[in-house]
Amino acid sequence: MYGKDLQILIQHLAKLPGLGPRSGRRAALHLLKNRETLMRPLIKALGLVEEHIRSCRVCGNYDTIDPCQLCTDPSRDHHLVCVVESVADLWALERAACFRGRYHVLGGTLSALEGTQPEDLKIPQLLERLQQTGAQEVILALNATVDGQTTAHYLVDRLEEAGVKVTALAHGVPIGGELDYLDDGTLSAALRARRNLVI
Amino acid sequence: MYGKDLQILIQHLAKLPGLGPRSGRRAALHLLKNRETLMRPLIKALGLVEEHIRSCRVCGNYDTIDPCQLCTDPSRDHHLVCVVESVADLWALERAACFRGRYHVLGGTLSALEGTQPEDLKIPQLLERLQQTGAQEVILALNATVDGQTTAHYLVDRLEEAGVKVTALAHGVPIGGELDYLDDGTLSAALRARRNLVI
Ligand SMILES: [Zn+2]
Ligand SMILES: [Zn+2]
Repeated sequence: MYGKDLQILIQHLAKLPGLGPRSGRRAALHLLKNRETLMRPLIKALGLVEEHIRSCRVCGNYDTIDPCQLCTDPSRDHHLVCVVESVADLWALERAACFRGRYHVLGGTLSALEGTQPEDLKIPQLLERLQQTGAQEVILALNATVDGQTTAHYLVDRLEEAGVKVTALAHGVPIGGELDYLDDGTLSAALRARRNLVI
Repeated sequence: MYGKDLQILIQHLAKLPGLGPRSGRRAALHLLKNRETLMRPLIKALGLVEEHIRSCRVCGNYDTIDPCQLCTDPSRDHHLVCVVESVADLWALERAACFRGRYHVLGGTLSALEGTQPEDLKIPQLLERLQQTGAQEVILALNATVDGQTTAHYLVDRLEEAGVKVTALAHGVPIGGELDYLDDGTLSAALRARRNLVI
């Protein structure tokens, strides 16, 4: 009933997280109704992001420059590296504005179920980076999920071998919770009260 | 923390129905993670839709041709016009595949609260169209909401003056319900059991 172009657009919109076939259709209609104020600006913004935004080769953050703003900001302590699962978690910590070190995005968690190995994540890159920059402390800011904590245990072992101090976010992160869903206050408190894992 | 381009993209994504600031961020990250399989195809699809899809001057449906496929399909009965509030409702009826006439999209409902007048909707165009094409029956397929039913009553009065037979979807549409959320079977049944409003 709608042309092929519109059908394909609806299919792509339906693939966005939180949307599905019905909300894909609603999004398409909303865009068509707001051609000047939303559809054209969205096309432009997508084009700019597609063209200019790249993954930082050092930390895995997204930015227009590589290495990213955070990695090149001299006011941020490069002896302090905060390890997160995803860019969404990095953004959550930056919104909380409580951390002035550098980040390392793993790009996921170890998972026996999904067969995710250390080499599938940016773990080799983390170990190499720590060796090169001589970081003094690694803060594990991983989600309080089974896979997040499995990954944390693995990293503690590897980082202990490498002689780096390892800390983790304090309890305050609710069990089963995900960083991106926490309020800034809880995140700040958890970061301030971080615990030493390797004594 | 993210560049201006990415921030603008997130703001636009957050304006899509069903999304908000958090899901806008998630959608942006999902697009960046799936650059080849989702972001580029989505940009292409948006561009094609923006360029080619127009509102049909006759019925208000969206299509690449104007008048649209439905308005130019000779197998569809142009003596039978189904009036809907939105293109989403037209699509819902087409998915149910139970109607072989033509449509007329009002583009909203009369609303005392929002001050929506008949001239703000495609009501003058409907009356003119019926006069020109000599339609025999107008089916009111409006939502079973207060504003939908207000609009139906107004249209019954105007169409009675114009001497056109007016029917409405049978009860079967739940009170307070919206067409776009109904299953196909309920919609088909409601259309088949449509009632005569002007005797
Ligand atoms: Zn970086
Ligand atoms: Zn049409």
